[in-house]
Formats: sequence, structure tokens, C-alpha cells
Amino acid sequence: MNVSIIGATGYSGIELIRLLENHPQFNIVSLHSSSMAGHYIHEENPHLLHITQLLKDIDPIKIAKESSIVFLATPSGVSAKLAPQLMDTGLTVIDLSGDLRLKDPESYKTWYKKDAAPAETLEQAVYGLSEWNAGQIKSAQLIANPGCFPTAALLGLAPLCEQQWCDRNSIIIDAKSGVSGAGRTPLSTTMFSEVNENFRIYKVHQHQHIPEIEQQLQSWQNGIGSIEFSTHLVPMTRGIMATMYVQLTERVTTKQLIDLYKSTYENHPFVRIQEEGQFPSTKQVMGSNFCDISVAINERTGRATIVSVIDNLVKGAAGQAIQNANIMSGFEETTGLLQVPLFP
Amino acid sequence: MNVSIIGATGYSGIELIRLLENHPQFNIVSLHSSSMAGHYIHEENPHLLHITQLLKDIDPIKIAKESSIVFLATPSGVSAKLAPQLMDTGLTVIDLSGDLRLKDPESYKTWYKKDAAPAETLEQAVYGLSEWNAGQIKSAQLIANPGCFPTAALLGLAPLCEQQWCDRNSIIIDAKSGVSGAGRTPLSTTMFSEVNENFRIYKVHQHQHIPEIEQQLQSWQNGIGSIEFSTHLVPMTRGIMATMYVQLTERVTTKQLIDLYKSTYENHPFVRIQEEGQFPSTKQVMGSNFCDISVAINERTGRATIVSVIDNLVKGAAGQAIQNANIMSGFEETTGLLQVPLFP
Amino acid sequence: MNVSIIGATGYSGIELIRLLENHPQFNIVSLHSSSMAGHYIHEENPHLLHITQLLKDIDPIKIAKESSIVFLATPSGVSAKLAPQLMDTGLTVIDLSGDLRLKDPESYKTWYKKDAAPAETLEQAVYGLSEWNAGQIKSAQLIANPGCFPTAALLGLAPLCEQQWCDRNSIIIDAKSGVSGAGRTPLSTTMFSEVNENFRIYKVHQHQHIPEIEQQLQSWQNGIGSIEFSTHLVPMTRGIMATMYVQLTERVTTKQLIDLYKSTYENHPFVRIQEEGQFPSTKQVMGSNFCDISVAINERTGRATIVSVIDNLVKGAAGQAIQNANIMSGFEETTGLLQVPLFP
Amino acid sequence: MNVSIIGATGYSGIELIRLLENHPQFNIVSLHSSSMAGHYIHEENPHLLHITQLLKDIDPIKIAKESSIVFLATPSGVSAKLAPQLMDTGLTVIDLSGDLRLKDPESYKTWYKKDAAPAETLEQAVYGLSEWNAGQIKSAQLIANPGCFPTAALLGLAPLCEQQWCDRNSIIIDAKSGVSGAGRTPLSTTMFSEVNENFRIYKVHQHQHIPEIEQQLQSWQNGIGSIEFSTHLVPMTRGIMATMYVQLTERVTTKQLIDLYKSTYENHPFVRIQEEGQFPSTKQVMGSNFCDISVAINERTGRATIVSVIDNLVKGAAGQAIQNANIMSGFEETTGLLQVPLFP
Repeated sequence: MNVSIIGATGYSGIELIRLLENHPQFNIVSLHSSSMAGHYIHEENPHLLHITQLLKDIDPIKIAKESSIVFLATPSGVSAKLAPQLMDTGLTVIDLSGDLRLKDPESYKTWYKKDAAPAETLEQAVYGLSEWNAGQIKSAQLIANPGCFPTAALLGLAPLCEQQWCDRNSIIIDAKSGVSGAGRTPLSTTMFSEVNENFRIYKVHQHQHIPEIEQQLQSWQNGIGSIEFSTHLVPMTRGIMATMYVQLTERVTTKQLIDLYKSTYENHPFVRIQEEGQFPSTKQVMGSNFCDISVAINERTGRATIVSVIDNLVKGAAGQAIQNANIMSGFEETTGLLQVPLFP
Repeated sequence: MNVSIIGATGYSGIELIRLLENHPQFNIVSLHSSSMAGHYIHEENPHLLHITQLLKDIDPIKIAKESSIVFLATPSGVSAKLAPQLMDTGLTVIDLSGDLRLKDPESYKTWYKKDAAPAETLEQAVYGLSEWNAGQIKSAQLIANPGCFPTAALLGLAPLCEQQWCDRNSIIIDAKSGVSGAGRTPLSTTMFSEVNENFRIYKVHQHQHIPEIEQQLQSWQNGIGSIEFSTHLVPMTRGIMATMYVQLTERVTTKQLIDLYKSTYENHPFVRIQEEGQFPSTKQVMGSNFCDISVAINERTGRATIVSVIDNLVKGAAGQAIQNANIMSGFEETTGLLQVPLFP
Repeated sequence: MNVSIIGATGYSGIELIRLLENHPQFNIVSLHSSSMAGHYIHEENPHLLHITQLLKDIDPIKIAKESSIVFLATPSGVSAKLAPQLMDTGLTVIDLSGDLRLKDPESYKTWYKKDAAPAETLEQAVYGLSEWNAGQIKSAQLIANPGCFPTAALLGLAPLCEQQWCDRNSIIIDAKSGVSGAGRTPLSTTMFSEVNENFRIYKVHQHQHIPEIEQQLQSWQNGIGSIEFSTHLVPMTRGIMATMYVQLTERVTTKQLIDLYKSTYENHPFVRIQEEGQFPSTKQVMGSNFCDISVAINERTGRATIVSVIDNLVKGAAGQAIQNANIMSGFEETTGLLQVPLFP
Repeated sequence: MNVSIIGATGYSGIELIRLLENHPQFNIVSLHSSSMAGHYIHEENPHLLHITQLLKDIDPIKIAKESSIVFLATPSGVSAKLAPQLMDTGLTVIDLSGDLRLKDPESYKTWYKKDAAPAETLEQAVYGLSEWNAGQIKSAQLIANPGCFPTAALLGLAPLCEQQWCDRNSIIIDAKSGVSGAGRTPLSTTMFSEVNENFRIYKVHQHQHIPEIEQQLQSWQNGIGSIEFSTHLVPMTRGIMATMYVQLTERVTTKQLIDLYKSTYENHPFVRIQEEGQFPSTKQVMGSNFCDISVAINERTGRATIVSVIDNLVKGAAGQAIQNANIMSGFEETTGLLQVPLFP
């Protein structure tokens, strides 16, 4: 099955190339980039030295002639305009940006400081949280692939919310991310000398992933209120950890919680639940599509601590996008995605 | 004034050497190490190549003959035994371990899994949180120098607790530390290949700094309950950030909070309060004795977020120890400690 | 085809697991570890959480019943004894240690400070530099898999030596390695706090890979003398770069050199030669079996500079071992090894 | 004594601030920046939160009214124009850029691809290699502060060249640098995600420090030919190591070489010579003005290996600039510069 990538030179774009190159069913038929069209992909990406594919302009009609599925790995603001054009040609679109995730255009405007996509496009977009939305994903033409932080947070909170166990105003998500999440444009805040040996908090109370997480939590448990959500920059390239604190309305033990999580994710091979007393680190999922989760009840405070880790570029972007493409194409969701994490 | 360091080859020990070498009033008259006695300090520490001091055995009586103040940079379990012997000789003792911080011996036993120091020693020990305890520190013979995490957390929470503004069971401290906090003994968990490109959570609900923080918070605000306290390992050598979430019982704005913090720390040059909308990163205090703090009210949730950063080896260990030595000796508390942070 | 791994918990061992798990022809039938037998592989390796294989004792006869090929990922000193026992059972053995690489037992003794393997075993061992020794590898029962530094250096120097173009006493190899090359045993020299923000030179004039490189160079060009070989530790986990300086006896241009390298490696897909003016960095091969090479003539000095990079755990260890297993089993040498490098 | 800094917001500029803030004799009377004039220095540099100095425009006459010495921490191309204007006012100028180091304007043009400074300015400029040029430095009005790589290389090669012991065409310098050497302007090549876990070679045979090193070597030993000089980027912020290989024309032992180096640098406290078998790492000088050097004769090849490390921002820039200012002002050269390296 032929697929195309728009925005092939960003970090999500080249991660799609890495994963699709080893996928037994999908064939990358074209790579597109507005800024680098006319160049070869390996010119600025010597790790792809053996891949001699030319970067092309973005022409929806031409893409539709060759491809069945197009991955949009473009920055927010671009997808809102491109997605409708691509869908008009009949293409299936998987959008990795934040443009199509929020159902409420006003909320998008508030958090992203940009104009929202057309209402009709937003309506058509299915939120691609693979483990929880496969039913809708199967028959969608347009996927809004979840953000990196939301993926880690939502997979960790879903079992509790689905049980309606969360005290509605008690959810605190202290999130930490590697630097690749900030994209490939050189910024003073992502320079090596500024990031290395440094741990930084940023966008306090203002991160655009807040409404995305709240919207999905509320779909599981009615009345979930505003969440506390903080994001930190870790001096590493890949990886996200969400450390989450929730007051439960139900009295449960750590063992019971682990059992709940294990049974919830029993048929979801990418979510691995750790045993009591074991907690994850980001490196144990690096380069893979796994999301590892631990839970524990703090016996002194009564709160639940949930810890969830992913590779932001895989399960938090390119990997989950391909997982969704698998689901949409009727393949096993794990097809081409069972890489063992790179360790050390 | 002559001073001695016991445990001179650990990370706190060599940091004491770094700072004391540039101190105008203190003179390191002897270095002691049980494991390395007979060797020169620069043998295993080539950064000290120009310092040719021999490491000696630990003999309290001999130390007392040469020195006025002794810094105990020994692991927990050792100070409990050594401190009383040193005090018997009349020496002033500043202990950097956790042995003498908890007033309740049972609590020490529970959290440290070791026998506590003699009750009388615990009684004599003054908690050396310099900015808040200078009165007692001045006349003490024995200082229990605060832990690295407690220093960051307590300086950040003190103004709120002192005002009695904290909802007693709402305090959540999500703490992150560089690797040097784990000490100098090689462990599989502190190897470069295991830590690099990795972010790890550890000792969930079990960190021995929990009772230390609670004890001090309760001394400021009666009835503070169990805190939520999580510790994470950041792939960097130095630095601690405590991100703290507190439900306030008072309705205040971010601006009012900042004013409170600024006035509280007005005469404390090592605590720097940041302006509204500015948040600290660990590198802005690296190598220095500063503690930088930001506060913000989340208008959507009503909670206060407090962010506090220190260099764990300076303000979180050797620097605060010297600050206490300054206070005890009648010097300006900043004497020899006004190094500008190393950036980048 | 069933294979076994002895020393499965070291860095080379778990890298073999990573690569073999995605290999279409080889099936890991058993994992062995002297120190961890009785435990599951994922216990200390949570990145393998989804793999529930028990670690077993090392019993050559039992291994031979289940397996055709055994990978020896044991430390030097162990393979010398184990390899003969495994071969006696008829097993094909691929040894990743340095024990069987030097043909001269005296040289082994001098550089490794240990007793050499039996002369007969050394004789049977075929040096597994896949690109240059495939003929012998095909029919071998015992492979001495090349060291990480030698792989990078030899692939870079081979075309010149084969042409007999090197001034015999002019070869200087300035090599740099990530920390994983130092193995998994915690050492003070591999602790994060000692390695991070640090660049170190080590084993000056004494590295045990010196005779291995010289032995192979001499097999290509008669009379090659002692090489200058320095090794440095880079604050990163994976990757080796060898920067090499050679006085050529032939007058050639950079373009001619590149042409020579391209034609030499034309049918060797894992060796990628870069264009004039392009030079490699280690990350462009991370996680992959590629070796990227650049060459340039310095017009001011007349010397050739050759730069070669590999992932020390893949092409420098586990990857090349599997490449050799492919060759021995009659598979395409690239089978299961065409992972795209992980970037960023 | 009042001093000013032009280019105060670059990495060399803020390092000058760090060191001068703790200098007992120099007082920073004004900070200047063309891009940030009107802002406070701590706005973009929160590590300087306690320093509330305004950044001013660059007006030579005004600067001369307040200051005796001005440090030029501007990029190459700027100093060539500014230095003459500043000198006209009578100011003493210490220039940290590469503009005034090469005596031959043609060479500057070739290597820097820019127009050279006026011939008369080049003539007045004294090369500020403190340990070797103090005589001229003392009475100079204009100092061309050495580059970071040249400082490390020259201090390591000087004793050999002074003895006339180098085979003239045999000098090979394999240099490695931390990322801060690339400056503070965000570039794709200095982004964290591109540099971390990466080791890169760059500017092969083309680095502008080549003529600077050759010019100085030739001043010590007549007829020194073109050097081989390679530069590598290490995933760390600070530090330079130069690994140097030289064929000696004299037959000496390692011990004799060490004795030569020790006696050469006997009265130069910033150069520390290591004992036989000991080799330096960059972290042992981090944050300090030390240059640590080791030498060894390779008994198998006959070549000398010289290893030299500095902190590129201190001894390789701001530290040596202040050392020169000390010399020019008649202070001890170590005044304000005896910081102990930051370790770990």
C-alpha cells in the first residue's frame, strides 16, 4: 500500500520514514517538503544516506494519484488548511499536528493563538488514541493523531476515568519531555549549551495540550474539571514521563489498581503494566511504540500515583500514526511496530 | 579560622574543598577519609592537582587540636556515631548527612532503616536551614545541615506555611535531581549508559527526605499532614528542581504571592524571587549558593504552583554548610559564597 | 534456525536480543548467564518487559540439543575456555570477546594480561570482519568477531592497505568511543557524574585493540609497522569515530580516493561512502549496522584523513556477529539488519 | 580599576562577567551590546538575576570616560573595525575575537573570508598567550587574545618547539571541543537533539585556527611546516582536549619530557603537568583557568603524544583575557582567577 509523507524533514517526518522503511505493508511512494523540495532527503539527513528519495512539492492531486494514505507531519497552522484539500482528493489523512484535535474551534483559538480548521473538518476528524478509539479509527478518513503529552497522560489515566474513580478536580499531571518534542527549528531554548546540564519548566499553566487532555478525560468521566498540567524540559532527546497524582473516590489497594490496569490493557500489546514496586524510566521504551505504566497508592496520603512513559516521537507521534494506519487498513495494529527498545 | 573535613573524597567533601579554598576566613587545616587515608587528595581528584594535601585518619582528639569547626561529609549511619565523639572534644560540628535531622528516633529508624543517633545528640542538633533558623544556628555546637531536596522544597513552601495558608493535606512536591545526589559509589543505577538519555522516577512514596520536610513544615504551620513527594533522576550531574502544588486556603493573586515571597526573603541574598511569568531552570544556579523561586496561581484550578531550584551540592549541601559556618562564626552569611553561577 | 546467547545480560548480549527479535530467520531458543541464571531477562532489563524468557545456566550439551549457533557475549578470559567446549558439541560459535582474535598467544598474553586460548582453538577461529573475510566465514565453525575499534579502523584503512598505498610507519588512529563500550559493570570511571560534561583519553599506547588492528593491516599490506592508536571516552552511550591520518606513497586526489572507496565497497551495503566535503558523525549510524566513511587529502600537508563511524554495539559487536551468522547460514548478509538509524 | 565589556551577552561576555564579579581589583563599570542595548543583562541571563546592570550602546568616547580597559567579546569581523576606534580614545583593548591574531592580512582573508583589520592595528596587536608573551603583554595597548584551540595546542607544543625538537612536518593535532565554542547564535548544528549522543568532525583541513597555531609555532621553531589539524564537536558544553602527535628529532624518554615540561612551566601556576601514566580529562579544569598537560613517548612508534586540556571559555577566552589584564595592570597574573574547577 503506497503512502506519502508531507513535512518529511521534521523530526516526526523522519521518524515516519524510519518506521515505514521497515514496515512490511506500507511503501513510501513520495516525500514532500515545502522548504526542501528539489533536494534529496539524505542531503540534510545523512543517517538516511542509503535512501535516495527526492523531496517534492505539496500537490494534493498528484499525491492522490500515487498514494492511499498521507501522513501530515507539518507544524500547527498548516494542517488546518492542507487537510481539507487532501481529503477532497479522496486521500486518507493522518494528521500529526494539533490542528484537528480540539472539537471546539474557540478553544483552539485560545490555546493555539491561531484560526481553527473549518468546522466540518473538525467534525470529520477522529481522535487517534489507538487503544481507546479503534472502532471509530477503522472507518475514518481523517485522523487527528494525539499529542505526545496527551498520549502519555491519557493512557495512564484512562482506566481510572473509565471507572469514574477520579475526584474530578484532583488531577495533577507533572510532565517531563525530551528536547525533540520542541521540533527541528533552531531556537535559543533548544541549543545544546542551554539545555545540557539543565532542567527547565516551561509554559506553566499555558500548554496547548491542556484542553486536549481535558476533552478526552471528560469523554470518559463526566464532569472532570480543569487539570493541573506542568511541562518540563529534560536534557535528553527522546522520551516523555507523566507523573500523575489523583485523589480517588474509591478505596483501592495498589494491587487492585494494577489488576485493573492489566485487565484493561490485556489485548493492547503496546501498553505494558509494571509489577508492584516497579516504576518505569523513559529509556525502557526508547525507539519503540510501547507505553509503560506503573500505579501505586500512597498509603500515607491516600492518593494514587500513576507514572506513564513513552517515546515522544514513536508512540507520541510517528508510531501511533502508523498504528492508526494499520487499524484503518485492516492490518494487525502491531504490524511493523514491534521494534525492541534501544538499550542502552 | 581552621576547619577540617571528614569524608573529604565524597562529592560533598570535594565541594567543600572547592568553596573553602576561595573562602577568605576559613582555612582547611586537615582532610580526613577512612578509605583513602595516606593518599593525597589530588590522586583520585585530578581537578585538585594544585592542592597537595594528605588525607588523614579520623582522630577526633587530633582534629580538635588543630581545628575549630569540622564538616562531616560522611554517609548516613556514620555521623550518628562520630558526631558525639567530635563534640566531646569541644569541636563545632556541621553534619551534612541525614543522621541528625529527625528529632524522632523512631522516624529515623523507619525511613533510614538504621539505628538513630543518641537522643541527647539529636536534641543538641540545630536544623541548619540558614534563612529560617539563623537565631538558633548562631549559638549551636552541632548543626544538622538540611538535605538537598528539603532545602529546595522548604525554601519554596516556607512563606506559605508561615502565613498558615496551605490546605493541610494538599501539598504535592514533584522533585527532580541530578545524579551527583546519589553519591560517588559506583552503582548500576548511576552508570552513564543507564542514566544518559533517560529520565527515571525512584523511591516512590519512600524517600527518607519525606519526614524531614514534614517535620519542618509542621514547625511553621500546625497540622500540616502527610505530603506527596516524588523524586526523579535527571540525566545531568548537578541541580534540583522542586515543582510544588498547593491548594491555598486564602484567595490571592500571583502578584500578591510574589510580593509575599519578595518581602519574606528581602534580607536573604541567596534566595532570588523571579518576576511574574518567569520560571527558573536548574542551570541558572549551577555552582552557586542561590535558590531561585517562582510562584504562580493557576487561574483555572485555583492551585498555587511553586518552583524552586538549587545546586544540590552547593545550597543543598556544601554551600549551606559553609553559610551556617559563617553564621556560627559571626561572619556575613555570604562570605566566600558569592560565586556567580557557571553558565553555560 | 535456533540460536542461543551466552552472556545475555551484558550490553552486547541485550543488543543481540534486540536485533534477533526482529530477525526473520533466527529464533532465540535460550538465553544464558552465569550470574543471573534463574531470573527472567526482563527483571533487570525492563525495556524487554514483553519478553518473558528465563535465563539459564551454561551447559554446552543442553545448548547443543536446542541450538545451531551460539553467540558468546562473555568478557575476555571466559570465551577462551568456553569456546572449545561448545565446539566439541558441534555447535557453531560466534565469539564477541577479544579472546580468539590474536593468532599469536604471546601477543594475547602481553596485551590482555591473561592466558591465551588453546593454540588449536586460535587456529580454527576465523576473524569475522564480514566485508573482507566472507569467504572464510562461510565455512567456519568458530568466528572471532572483531572488536569495536578495529571494525571502525579496519573498514576505513582497508582500501588503502589493499592498494599498498600506506607509508608503513605513518598510520595514526585517533579513536573516540561512547561509554557503552566499557561494559555494564559499574566502575568509578563510567559513572554518570564522572563522564558527563567530560572528555577523557585512556589506555594511552596500551589498548588491547592495537595488536588486533596491526595483525589485520599486515595481512593486507606487508610490512605495516606499529600504529599510533589513542582511545578517548566521549560523554555519549553509543558510537565510535576513528579519525585516521596516513601518509600515502601514491599521489592521489580526494576525488580519486573516494572513487576507490566507492568501488571497493560497491557490493557491501553496510558501508556507506560520503561525498567530497561531507564528513560523518556517530549519530548517523546509531542503532544500525552501517559504517560510514569519508576520506580527504589535506592539500597543505599531503596526508590523507580517513574518518569512519559505527555504532559500537551494532556493527562493532552484535550486528556484525549476526551479519556473520547470516553469511554462515547462507542468508543474505543484510537479513534482519537493515534498521534505519535512530535519529534524532 | 574600571573595565567595560563589549559583546556582554555572548558566551565569552557572560563568562567575563562571572570572573570579573569575583575579581578583587577590576570593577565592571559598563556592559555593552549592539543587539540588546536598553535591556538588563539578567533578562536573558537569569543566572545573573542578582546583577542589575543595564546593557548600553557601543560608544567609544563614553566608554573611555569611565573605563581603563575594554574587553571586546564580539564576533570576528566586528573587532577589526571597533578596536582602532577604541584605541584612539586611549583605552586599553583586549580583543577575544580572531580579527587581530594573524599578522598577515592575506592569511586572514583566506581563512576568515573577510577583510582584515588595518595593517597598523595588526602591527600594534600583541598575541596574548600569557605564559609565553608576558614581556610584550605588559606594555601593550592592544591584545589579540588567543583562540581556544590555539591556547590548548600551543601550551602543549611550546616546550618541544622551543627546544627545536619537532620534526617540522610531523605535527598532528586532533582537537575536540565542547559546544559552547560555537557561540550563542542558534544553529541547526548546535541544537541539543542534533548534538546529544553525537560525536562530529567538522571543518576538516579548513579551520581558521590553523594559521594562528602555525604562526606561533614558527616563532618558536624556525621552519615548522603545515600542521595537520582536525576539530571535533563533543556532546558537552565546555572543554577542549588537544591530542597531539609529534615525531621528535631528539631521542628522549617520557620521564625526560615530563621534566622538561615541569621546569618550563615551573613559574606558571595555571599550567599543571601530570605525572607519568596520568592523562587529563576536560572536566578536571572546568570553570577554571588551568591548562593540564600530559606527555608520553610511545615506545613502539617513537612518537611523542601530548595531551592538553582547558576550559574553552576560561583559559581559552575570558580567563586568559583577564590574566592578560592582570599582567598589563601590574597585578599578580593569578589575581581573581584561582577558582577551583567545578567537579563533578
